[in-house]
Amino acid sequence: MIRLFHAMKALHVKSVLQRPKKSFIPSSLLPTAHERFSTASAVPLAKTDAWPKDVGILALEVYFPAQYVDQTELEKYDSVEAGKYTVGLGQTQMGFCSVQEDINSLCLTVVQRLMERTKLPWDNVGRLEVGTETIIDKSKAVKTVLMELFQDSGNTDIEGIDTTNACYGGTASLFNAANWMESSSWDGRYAMVVCGDIAVYASGNARSTGGAGAVAMLIGPNSPLVLERGLRGTHMENVYDFYKPDLASEYPVVDGKLSIQCYLRALDRCYAFYRKKIQNQWKQAGTERPFTLDDFQYMIFHTPFCKLVQKSVARLLFNDFLSAKTDVQNSRYKGLEAFRDLKLEDTYFNKDVEKAFQKASQDIFNQKTKSSLNLSTLNGNMYTSSLYGCLASLLSQHTPQQLAGARIGAFSYGSGLAASLFSIKVSQDATPGSPLEKLMSSVSDLPKRLASRKRVSPEEFSEIMTQREKYSHEVNFSPPGDVNSLFPGTWYLERVDGMHRRKYARRPL
Amino acid sequence: MIRLFHAMKALHVKSVLQRPKKSFIPSSLLPTAHERFSTASAVPLAKTDAWPKDVGILALEVYFPAQYVDQTELEKYDSVEAGKYTVGLGQTQMGFCSVQEDINSLCLTVVQRLMERTKLPWDNVGRLEVGTETIIDKSKAVKTVLMELFQDSGNTDIEGIDTTNACYGGTASLFNAANWMESSSWDGRYAMVVCGDIAVYASGNARSTGGAGAVAMLIGPNSPLVLERGLRGTHMENVYDFYKPDLASEYPVVDGKLSIQCYLRALDRCYAFYRKKIQNQWKQAGTERPFTLDDFQYMIFHTPFCKLVQKSVARLLFNDFLSAKTDVQNSRYKGLEAFRDLKLEDTYFNKDVEKAFQKASQDIFNQKTKSSLNLSTLNGNMYTSSLYGCLASLLSQHTPQQLAGARIGAFSYGSGLAASLFSIKVSQDATPGSPLEKLMSSVSDLPKRLASRKRVSPEEFSEIMTQREKYSHEVNFSPPGDVNSLFPGTWYLERVDGMHRRKYARRPL
Repeated sequence: MIRLFHAMKALHVKSVLQRPKKSFIPSSLLPTAHERFSTASAVPLAKTDAWPKDVGILALEVYFPAQYVDQTELEKYDSVEAGKYTVGLGQTQMGFCSVQEDINSLCLTVVQRLMERTKLPWDNVGRLEVGTETIIDKSKAVKTVLMELFQDSGNTDIEGIDTTNACYGGTASLFNAANWMESSSWDGRYAMVVCGDIAVYASGNARSTGGAGAVAMLIGPNSPLVLERGLRGTHMENVYDFYKPDLASEYPVVDGKLSIQCYLRALDRCYAFYRKKIQNQWKQAGTERPFTLDDFQYMIFHTPFCKLVQKSVARLLFNDFLSAKTDVQNSRYKGLEAFRDLKLEDTYFNKDVEKAFQKASQDIFNQKTKSSLNLSTLNGNMYTSSLYGCLASLLSQHTPQQLAGARIGAFSYGSGLAASLFSIKVSQDATPGSPLEKLMSSVSDLPKRLASRKRVSPEEFSEIMTQREKYSHEVNFSPPGDVNSLFPGTWYLERVDGMHRRKYARRPL
Repeated sequence: MIRLFHAMKALHVKSVLQRPKKSFIPSSLLPTAHERFSTASAVPLAKTDAWPKDVGILALEVYFPAQYVDQTELEKYDSVEAGKYTVGLGQTQMGFCSVQEDINSLCLTVVQRLMERTKLPWDNVGRLEVGTETIIDKSKAVKTVLMELFQDSGNTDIEGIDTTNACYGGTASLFNAANWMESSSWDGRYAMVVCGDIAVYASGNARSTGGAGAVAMLIGPNSPLVLERGLRGTHMENVYDFYKPDLASEYPVVDGKLSIQCYLRALDRCYAFYRKKIQNQWKQAGTERPFTLDDFQYMIFHTPFCKLVQKSVARLLFNDFLSAKTDVQNSRYKGLEAFRDLKLEDTYFNKDVEKAFQKASQDIFNQKTKSSLNLSTLNGNMYTSSLYGCLASLLSQHTPQQLAGARIGAFSYGSGLAASLFSIKVSQDATPGSPLEKLMSSVSDLPKRLASRKRVSPEEFSEIMTQREKYSHEVNFSPPGDVNSLFPGTWYLERVDGMHRRKYARRPL
């Protein structure tokens, strides 16, 4: 893991105080953690008009709980038909947290692990933003708790705070971090985007769509996963598909059918905006042609459950088909011509369309998307971190050579609703030691880590959910449970005092 | 009001689809609302390396409730000594909301009023972000409710979502909006920053520090209130001074003494960072001298209560004094020499320091800050919108000539904690018809609007607070109360249905 971050030497930091005449000097980043520049000396690049090159994801850390429940066993326990969760939803296992973990501990863990893995000095972070919908305090941001980790470094000048809208908060944070880095506010340091959630549902069928986890991403210039500039299709509207109006409960109110319709409608709209924007870019560069799924080498999606993602790939193909010219429809989409007069908005529950385009898009799904669902299949819905868990899965299931130069389409959806489709361009350089190879090798242990989790029976899982309900309103308690059931290096809730103040401790690495 | 927005012609929008060869074309903004460019045609400026000029606040709208309670009467009602609220806190009146208003309705009102006042077409907004700590849904953002206003325009491609950390969310949103406008994500349209809160406390002394209100700001280039580039001192740390861990209650948990200490410590730290940054900028430009309060022509502060702001001005003078050279201390700060060996961190509750520097800074306070406290004095704490309400007050109490060319220091504080000190440079042009003059004339009615509110007795106020407590968990109800008690043009909560879904209506203008 240590070798990962030679890549980050590529980040240049303007250090005007020491060297007023030079403009860009390689930072004293890794591996020598001693040679730090102080927080105060990080000077704004206000005089520099150019955006830094290739802003994107330099490093990525995924955290998921060390325990899971098996969905086949859960089907039996819930007395539902066999396959309802495993085939109908496409879910195999589901991670979950005991009372020992909360949103703060999840984010503490993933941030510290990322910092340790990259050996980044704590004062090299100039922005940190958290996206979450797991609200345990209506005022105090998770970000403020994370400041605890930075205390020893003396680095308190870190912009960014918490962002919330259902599962969209991570994406909003990512966009904000990238914008910061291209703006006059950038002080030459890295940004960190943290997203995490504990997704739990009241007992019943919906409970099987839970999950838990967190992702931290280090954002900087010269990255191997570049956020493509100007290419974001966003769609927002006011709907009540999934929301959490009962503030005293961890559980959401869900209108399942409406939520699927909203997800697919947002996908349609975002894809339309995205295509328009990229086609405009191409036009400016002298090329006029329609954007299709062929132009995405890989596609990742926010994943409430895996089956919806397969439907989404089919849906995008349906979009391509409807916007193609008649002769293209006849030649390229053979056998689908019968659907050509349909309208997007009339087909959210059209089973014929769904079936036909799912069949037609099966190969596309297998080639471009399936590998991104590994974590979601085995851990469930991580809400804000779901999409970025898919990215990690994709990286862990391919070689750098397979991904080099690819454009990855990414669809982020948060109920309520806010959605964006954007794209990530993978760097061309896949050689050993390249930033891409290092980033990918850092997440290559994902399948092994998933396999090392402990399986818990549905009975015990259900008991732990009841415990969560009980303790969510308590004060003056230390959570029950064995700290050794957590992965090494995991932060956990040690105590909530009489004033609701939370104290955390870390299981040794 | 209508004339305000000729100023906005100054915003240039790249409209590549229609005119691919030209890069900057004056937008078809106001006053002809017909000549709109479609959302989809707003094309990213990805090819342009330069940041737009003078990004800042183009227009500003303040909303506060149409009713208030008198603090002298509240002192009697609460059976506390006379002057405890009015002198001790410096508060004269306090605005409050009945059950008819919630955070969504407040923000709907202020956004619609800003759009009406500026006559901005709804599809000219490309980003809208909300800062609030009034959480009535743990997942669904206020921003999504505001999308309702944009529905008729068909504009759904609007980035930005909700941001939360106590009273800091508005500032985080403002920074994010400005960053967006300088980044490759900018599509040439305006950004809107919305902040609002309903600040209520359990019955007792703390209740007098409540308030309610919302501010919407239109952000764009060529603004009369420019966010000075690279000049932000930020300080964040993990403390439990004010927080809302009881999710079922509207009321916070407050450690009052700790919160004041945290506020002042954050002020010290932010001021130190800010000074370092501006001194670095000066040094780069060839000037070496210490920054002092003389370099702020005006200063505005997040205002939990007005007395703390006066203490803060004194505190900044104490900072100037401690960092001055001995000869300057002796000459410029005559009579204060006895305090020269003190340390900032030891003096948060040093009454001698407080008294001496409050006296020494009295003129500074009167000249630079007092006029910004008009709204806070008469309406109370608006949390995220407090600082921007101070800005509005400042603008409403001066002539454009008085403010032209000034640097306004702005201190934003959110418990937990997150704080930033930044500065706003007022444009030089104060002539009639200038953007500055138009912006200022648009808020000049603030004192008149405040005077038009209805005074409500402490008894009735207390009843309404009890009603708020009762209804905050209800479903299936229409809020009690007379819609005619709201200002014309105010959105209000019409109904919460059995599924917690909220419907709003608007009192006609």
